[in-house]
Amino acid sequence: MPTQSNDCPCLNVDCERYKDCDPCRESHFNRGYLPACDRPRDADGNFVMPVLGNYLVTQVALIVRDIETTKKKFAAFFGVEPPPTVTGGNYEIAKTVYMGNPAPKAGCKLAFFNGGPNLSIELIEPNGEQSTWQDFLDKNGEGIHHIAFGVKDMNEKVEACEKLGMICTQRGKYGDGSGEYAYLDATADLKCFIELLESY
Amino acid sequence: MPTQSNDCPCLNVDCERYKDCDPCRESHFNRGYLPACDRPRDADGNFVMPVLGNYLVTQVALIVRDIETTKKKFAAFFGVEPPPTVTGGNYEIAKTVYMGNPAPKAGCKLAFFNGGPNLSIELIEPNGEQSTWQDFLDKNGEGIHHIAFGVKDMNEKVEACEKLGMICTQRGKYGDGSGEYAYLDATADLKCFIELLESY
Repeated sequence: MPTQSNDCPCLNVDCERYKDCDPCRESHFNRGYLPACDRPRDADGNFVMPVLGNYLVTQVALIVRDIETTKKKFAAFFGVEPPPTVTGGNYEIAKTVYMGNPAPKAGCKLAFFNGGPNLSIELIEPNGEQSTWQDFLDKNGEGIHHIAFGVKDMNEKVEACEKLGMICTQRGKYGDGSGEYAYLDATADLKCFIELLESY
Repeated sequence: MPTQSNDCPCLNVDCERYKDCDPCRESHFNRGYLPACDRPRDADGNFVMPVLGNYLVTQVALIVRDIETTKKKFAAFFGVEPPPTVTGGNYEIAKTVYMGNPAPKAGCKLAFFNGGPNLSIELIEPNGEQSTWQDFLDKNGEGIHHIAFGVKDMNEKVEACEKLGMICTQRGKYGDGSGEYAYLDATADLKCFIELLESY
């Protein structure tokens, strides 16, 4: 509940930007959620929060057939050296789960470009085995597959998305074990796939 | 050509970050191009430059059938108020050109969300008349359509993209006349559509 008057529900009296609206809004904007005074409320007067805790897109990813060729095209277009190609990792580390079942054969190659202050462009080449990546390639061909968001408490966030009707198609750890991901089929409502990323 | 030694081709001696590598790299990274010492060179030793002048993605855009419904779903997911829906503008201002020909009927509705420090998420509902938006909807259904980059000197940048084999499918002005856009079919090499945006 607001601790201040209704026309300025500034919640954190200790904040250095307290009641200093422009830098407050800018700070919130860059962290991907609204300050209290701009946040919508539900019918009971409670603040509506982003389902994921923020709405910062950290990645836009494309499914490609031949990552070596496509990454060179992107590198030439961007005027940068082609980035290294890495694998999605071995099953022993990645522990890939596809549609709720272990998927030891599911795999991919990956390459990443800088796309902005908080954004990477990811290329993904599926390995031909069944996976959410291969499903997209078989159904849609090459193209933009998902946008990704950084989260905390992955299980809780996946459940929140499932309650909204999204389908968790695949989960696993990063290839080096330094975090985990989950893909949500949000095509019914958000018209795209989203990925949640939790780096440890 | 580098004005300094080969192992540190720092070009701008008046820069406050001159020879101060970490802040230099961070500054370049956030502006979307590499510092001289990190930039690749062609066979003649000349620096390779980004085709567009930078590689900062400023927008990721989705084609949707019903913008009013989808924008409410995104707003609820992000915990924000639904943004206003605006039109792509009247032909008198937009001067839409589709595949090289005037397209006075081509139109769309638009809505924008914050997606990060330098990124907006755009929803586009085509109006049923022929356009690059409607073509995507008819061929692919709803989904992520393009990533966009801010440019200067639009004509020059469109030509540079066409020389790479991209096809300019549509051009026009912003609905309020405050800038212009061009769509490039880059599916052959980059496996997606890109949009160039020049705000006046």
